[in-house]
Amino acid sequence: MLQSFGIGLAGLGNVGAGVFKHLTQNRALLRERLGVELNVRKIAVRNVSKERGIAVAPELLTTEWQDLLADPAISIIVELMGRKEESLRLILGAIERGKIVVTGNKALLAEHGREIFEAATRHKIPVFFEAAVAGGIPIIKSIREAFIGNHIESIHGIINGTSNYILTQMVETGASFNEALAEAQAAGYAEADPAFDVNGWDAAHKAIILASLAYGFWIPIDKIFVEGIEHITANDICFARKLGYTIKLLGIIKASTSGEIEVRVHPTLIPEKHVLASVSGVFNALAVHGDVVGDTLFYGRGAGQDPTASAVIADIAEAAAALQSPRSNYGFMPHGLYGTCTPLDKIVSEYYLRVLVEDRPGVMAQIAGTLGGLNIGISSIFQPEGTEGEAVQLILVIHKATHGQMSEALAQIGTLNCVKQPPRMIRVENFA
Amino acid sequence: MLQSFGIGLAGLGNVGAGVFKHLTQNRALLRERLGVELNVRKIAVRNVSKERGIAVAPELLTTEWQDLLADPAISIIVELMGRKEESLRLILGAIERGKIVVTGNKALLAEHGREIFEAATRHKIPVFFEAAVAGGIPIIKSIREAFIGNHIESIHGIINGTSNYILTQMVETGASFNEALAEAQAAGYAEADPAFDVNGWDAAHKAIILASLAYGFWIPIDKIFVEGIEHITANDICFARKLGYTIKLLGIIKASTSGEIEVRVHPTLIPEKHVLASVSGVFNALAVHGDVVGDTLFYGRGAGQDPTASAVIADIAEAAAALQSPRSNYGFMPHGLYGTCTPLDKIVSEYYLRVLVEDRPGVMAQIAGTLGGLNIGISSIFQPEGTEGEAVQLILVIHKATHGQMSEALAQIGTLNCVKQPPRMIRVENFA
Repeated sequence: MLQSFGIGLAGLGNVGAGVFKHLTQNRALLRERLGVELNVRKIAVRNVSKERGIAVAPELLTTEWQDLLADPAISIIVELMGRKEESLRLILGAIERGKIVVTGNKALLAEHGREIFEAATRHKIPVFFEAAVAGGIPIIKSIREAFIGNHIESIHGIINGTSNYILTQMVETGASFNEALAEAQAAGYAEADPAFDVNGWDAAHKAIILASLAYGFWIPIDKIFVEGIEHITANDICFARKLGYTIKLLGIIKASTSGEIEVRVHPTLIPEKHVLASVSGVFNALAVHGDVVGDTLFYGRGAGQDPTASAVIADIAEAAAALQSPRSNYGFMPHGLYGTCTPLDKIVSEYYLRVLVEDRPGVMAQIAGTLGGLNIGISSIFQPEGTEGEAVQLILVIHKATHGQMSEALAQIGTLNCVKQPPRMIRVENFA
Repeated sequence: MLQSFGIGLAGLGNVGAGVFKHLTQNRALLRERLGVELNVRKIAVRNVSKERGIAVAPELLTTEWQDLLADPAISIIVELMGRKEESLRLILGAIERGKIVVTGNKALLAEHGREIFEAATRHKIPVFFEAAVAGGIPIIKSIREAFIGNHIESIHGIINGTSNYILTQMVETGASFNEALAEAQAAGYAEADPAFDVNGWDAAHKAIILASLAYGFWIPIDKIFVEGIEHITANDICFARKLGYTIKLLGIIKASTSGEIEVRVHPTLIPEKHVLASVSGVFNALAVHGDVVGDTLFYGRGAGQDPTASAVIADIAEAAAALQSPRSNYGFMPHGLYGTCTPLDKIVSEYYLRVLVEDRPGVMAQIAGTLGGLNIGISSIFQPEGTEGEAVQLILVIHKATHGQMSEALAQIGTLNCVKQPPRMIRVENFA
């Protein structure tokens, strides 16, 4: 007789239903590969009578997630409710009761990861969360296990499919942000309220998880820089292309040689020839650089019912293996609770600057002088053709400056009489 | 006091030296992440006095690989000798003695995988082999663990860096195969004897390993189709581009809906817009399609001291975890020793056909007639500009035909009077 493990599934939304469906459909495959039987014993939902398009025996359903904790035959809790308070209580309750946790709740991990993993370490209970970052792409497992012998030097990720879809549309059709967003909503790739996807915070939660994994301490949420794609214009896309770049929303995680970590999410000009530039539509991709392995890239669907279910099922399989043979250690999370982040103002980057200025001699010198006064070197200036009323766009590329220097520069440039609108700044990444 | 595990390293060539170097350099990191100490206790080499550019205490070295088996304090054997007979004896000897095996020996696994894994299963000893395929790319772990809930429907891989470097040179510079090969040798990317890399067999060994992993039975070496890149001409590259394709040496693994497996390695026309088309130089990449996860791609350096060492060290870390908590099962290898392969003659593909023919009316009809007589449909014919003496090239694209049909077609076309050279055929993959 095969050993059997009971699963409690919390949440039967899009991903939860996918997990249940594929656990059922690929049951024989999993039994054969794992050598154990996986049984979903209870499913916590808000509404038992909701139509979900999958066949679920009614006796599996409960409206009380606490029932999953109370069932002694459930040894794996799969948290896919996507809530804050209740998800946290469920996860901490599971850990206390010795039930292994699988979750895809990125917001919760980004905000309460430290608390959750401290409890997990204390109780020696693993918490798996492959589904929290980049859907079906096994990036968590790869950083945690495949690159265990590496210092992770950097991660550059396209980790929000909605933003990438919108930017791809803007590049391919010349659409404005609002047009592309409407198109994404019509195609089902953006929510009715898209704020969290386009303002960078969904990507930021994922970046926090990746950075915490790579560096072994939970990055405080106030130590990261986050900017969304709402202000990217068709002009920016067009000017970037003239410079040989495309624009992507990137999560960037870097370790300095002194060991300080920087985590930021922002629209970024990247060279058109870089492999990340060819990642289009809702796809996600992560470029990871390790000191031993060098450059690697992972690509796939970062969201959606099936890819995310694939990640959850892999975690359930890990949980089953952990139940059979408990380990004292599950890769490098958390291997320490120390570490420092580079202060925002000190983060060095390259920049693209777009300034709407009066079309008259001397203006370029005035702006260059302002930057020079702040010790900021300019690597190029160009003026695209066409005027906007009596004003023209001026594009500057700044080779290297700190966030602090550039904030001051933007403030000063914004007060110049010849400048007609607050200047727009987008960061540039050349993967040097 | 931390637990400590003894490692016996067999082979101190390029990869072996990399493993030793990085185990030493990243020792603190590994200790912290793993929670155990890893100690290389003995290293088997052919020549103890050879200069290797790394500092190794002379008392670690032995010329007898049997010494690694004899040492009871060695619990992990890392086989990097890259030999046949002796590597097999070492691995089987390790398994019998309860020592966990890590190897990067792809030729050995492709030829003796069944024997090795039968012994491993019998003795419940894991054998790890991430370094055998695609260097630092964690493709073995991903198939085995991350995609455990998936039926793997296909794998398309650029898994020989030397061939990819040569083809990239041919595309970028218009060089002939021989010129590009010489360039690769000068750059250190091809061996003095490049046969094994350019004739497809190195890729074939890796494809066998991947297919065996994905489908749970060892693919017999005589069931796969292997063709190298030696006969690709600058003309082919140029004509392919006119059709919107580039040429890559691909390992292709597919499961039919009836469960038959096909494994083949050959130069392949792939659409220029496909993500694999942008994988250039010595890089490797694998596109894996699972029934749940959908399309994924993995990219990185497929060879070289450091990337391969990264994979070996990850396996050593797995071995250490397995020593602490033995599992009854290590992912899906082997989960069965059954399965069938599609007979070569029945494998369906698309084709590019280049025929040097007399430059006179009626020739096209004659060739089309021959194909028609074999029930092979033509999707396009074109004649690139330029003559070669009194002959011209004719390019045909065949939408779908079996290997058997095409073999017969090539034989018949070759005997036509109007045909000046044996026709050249390259397979096409549109990832439909």
